[in-house]
Amino acid sequence: MPTYPFLTDLVRALPATVPFVGPEALQRMRGRPFRARLGANESVFGPSPKSIAAMEAAAASAFMYGDPENFELRAAIAKHHGVSIENVAVGEGIDGLLGLAVKVAVAPGEVVVTSDGAYPTFNYHVAVGGGRLVKVPFRDDKEDLGAVLDAGRAENAKILYVSNPNNPMGSWWSAFEIEGMISALPPTVLFCLDEAYCDTAPPAAVPDIDISNPRVLRFRTFSKAYGLAGARVGYALGEAGLISIFDKIRNHYGMSRSGQIGALAALADQDYLAETVGRIAAGRDRLAQIARENGLAPLPSATNFVTMDCGRDGTYATRVLDEIIARDVFVRMPGVAPLNRCIRVTVGTPDDLDVFAEVLPEALRAAQG
Amino acid sequence: MPTYPFLTDLVRALPATVPFVGPEALQRMRGRPFRARLGANESVFGPSPKSIAAMEAAAASAFMYGDPENFELRAAIAKHHGVSIENVAVGEGIDGLLGLAVKVAVAPGEVVVTSDGAYPTFNYHVAVGGGRLVKVPFRDDKEDLGAVLDAGRAENAKILYVSNPNNPMGSWWSAFEIEGMISALPPTVLFCLDEAYCDTAPPAAVPDIDISNPRVLRFRTFSKAYGLAGARVGYALGEAGLISIFDKIRNHYGMSRSGQIGALAALADQDYLAETVGRIAAGRDRLAQIARENGLAPLPSATNFVTMDCGRDGTYATRVLDEIIARDVFVRMPGVAPLNRCIRVTVGTPDDLDVFAEVLPEALRAAQG
Repeated sequence: MPTYPFLTDLVRALPATVPFVGPEALQRMRGRPFRARLGANESVFGPSPKSIAAMEAAAASAFMYGDPENFELRAAIAKHHGVSIENVAVGEGIDGLLGLAVKVAVAPGEVVVTSDGAYPTFNYHVAVGGGRLVKVPFRDDKEDLGAVLDAGRAENAKILYVSNPNNPMGSWWSAFEIEGMISALPPTVLFCLDEAYCDTAPPAAVPDIDISNPRVLRFRTFSKAYGLAGARVGYALGEAGLISIFDKIRNHYGMSRSGQIGALAALADQDYLAETVGRIAAGRDRLAQIARENGLAPLPSATNFVTMDCGRDGTYATRVLDEIIARDVFVRMPGVAPLNRCIRVTVGTPDDLDVFAEVLPEALRAAQG
Repeated sequence: MPTYPFLTDLVRALPATVPFVGPEALQRMRGRPFRARLGANESVFGPSPKSIAAMEAAAASAFMYGDPENFELRAAIAKHHGVSIENVAVGEGIDGLLGLAVKVAVAPGEVVVTSDGAYPTFNYHVAVGGGRLVKVPFRDDKEDLGAVLDAGRAENAKILYVSNPNNPMGSWWSAFEIEGMISALPPTVLFCLDEAYCDTAPPAAVPDIDISNPRVLRFRTFSKAYGLAGARVGYALGEAGLISIFDKIRNHYGMSRSGQIGALAALADQDYLAETVGRIAAGRDRLAQIARENGLAPLPSATNFVTMDCGRDGTYATRVLDEIIARDVFVRMPGVAPLNRCIRVTVGTPDDLDVFAEVLPEALRAAQG
């Protein structure tokens, strides 16, 4: 008899791989800390001071469960977007909500379409749900909306996944183009639009919210521009009946009380968000300049990171990455060709970027030598 | 075409019910706050002051994701229990981990055995996974270990679930009896032992940890005696290979950084835990005394609550409950006969219990009148 005779066939067949190795694990392997943490697309500018103060004040009340309905936070998010509270689901980051979306629509063996090199954690959730992933290539470093649609039709897909702006390339489509895709969706598909980076994008890249479409879910987060990655607060916007389906399957007590309170205060401080977005834009410019000064080609970015074309293949870019990490700067790179000719660097503080500017030429010399 | 043509058959068939309506929702419905919150089995004594201080200090670093491996917390938990870090999985409360355990072992249509009236959130996760629940009755207000075993054998179950101590009755089995059950498990079953309340139980109710058994998972939490319900930190103890399976299916970035830090500090302050457990024991005695003074029969309890037999049927106990809630005290009651002849009252501060002592006789008079 096998050691774990109770395992389902699905779980038995899953690989042991994880979506990402975290910077803490890298530090443990290396035996020393990073000088700059520029690989996880966090906001080094932190959350709003008002959010910090709210979380500090909430620490002593951590003995109480958070409201399982996330009522106050959902009400505030709804007001912010001009929709109703029934149009908002809150979850443990976009990651948690993507897992739920897969559960909603994908039975084992059913097809999900994404782009080859797009968000690995989404792919992970599809595998956990037993779905079959169909991946279409990027085109010109952008997710190819037409190819996603075509594959969705050809494969009778249950979910189409698009991120806009895109991680890991930083590219984006206009609202017009995304709306065009939505209007062309096959009638039986659920469209998951991951807008984790929309707060740092040009307004023209973010479609108006048509909350009446029962086949579109838009995913947002407090982890990026709002600076609350550690609080694990994401949300989905959608038609009320669609959003209510999350209540059938979610972990109702999955949100921390501190996260609910911190996100509520962060959302209320739009001035700080605007200030952060300005600092991120300045950081992107500086990163692009550092890239160019070192002979790398920075890709245009609507996110809080800059992806830099190292000009050769994935082997070379991996060498560059390894040499940067060896110099105690945490960065990442896309995992799939041809995107993996690049490295991806998150915006840091001016001091962080000084460190990167110091380290990059050394790393390039070492990678070339 | 249906409005949500992409829904899986499983999700389409799920009910819209939720495991619990939270106290915040009750307050919104009532339009006024509770005077005492004695229904959610939280610890009103709060987390360790060192844990509070650690979470306050961590608020400003909420912009960083928590370590997806939960390394430091798992290492500390392992050391605390004298096991290896590979024997520990951390998740978003026991609720989150129970959902994962169901995913590990239960394919749609497969059987899970629990007791009728035991933890509703476990049943919820079984339904979400498409499992078929088989419920055996309590016996003498305790989960009937023999009946669970018998049903497991008769139904070829994938999971047997037992809580020890038990919620909602407060009852418990000795370690000897639990170990006897484990030795009699059908060879293909996964045994889920929910020990959320073990920190307030007599030591003789908690079996030694045999970490070599690959078919037993034990679930612990920081939500009860440690006073961190709002932080959403639970953990599972088990054989290393079994524990590693969680890595295939869990939300790797599901834990808040604040929760990781708060739990680590709480675990390190065992003196505060011992002090809290003493205060909980004193509160149980006081609750039992209040019950007796009002003609109710308090059940023996190894938990942080006291279940009180109102001496009639479920209709009467519901009336008592409603009258208590109408007087602004949040309490709950078991949902299933014959357990629902009782109400369940969490230990509160001395002030909270004064409020309960004031309200209970009025509520009983109203319920009888």
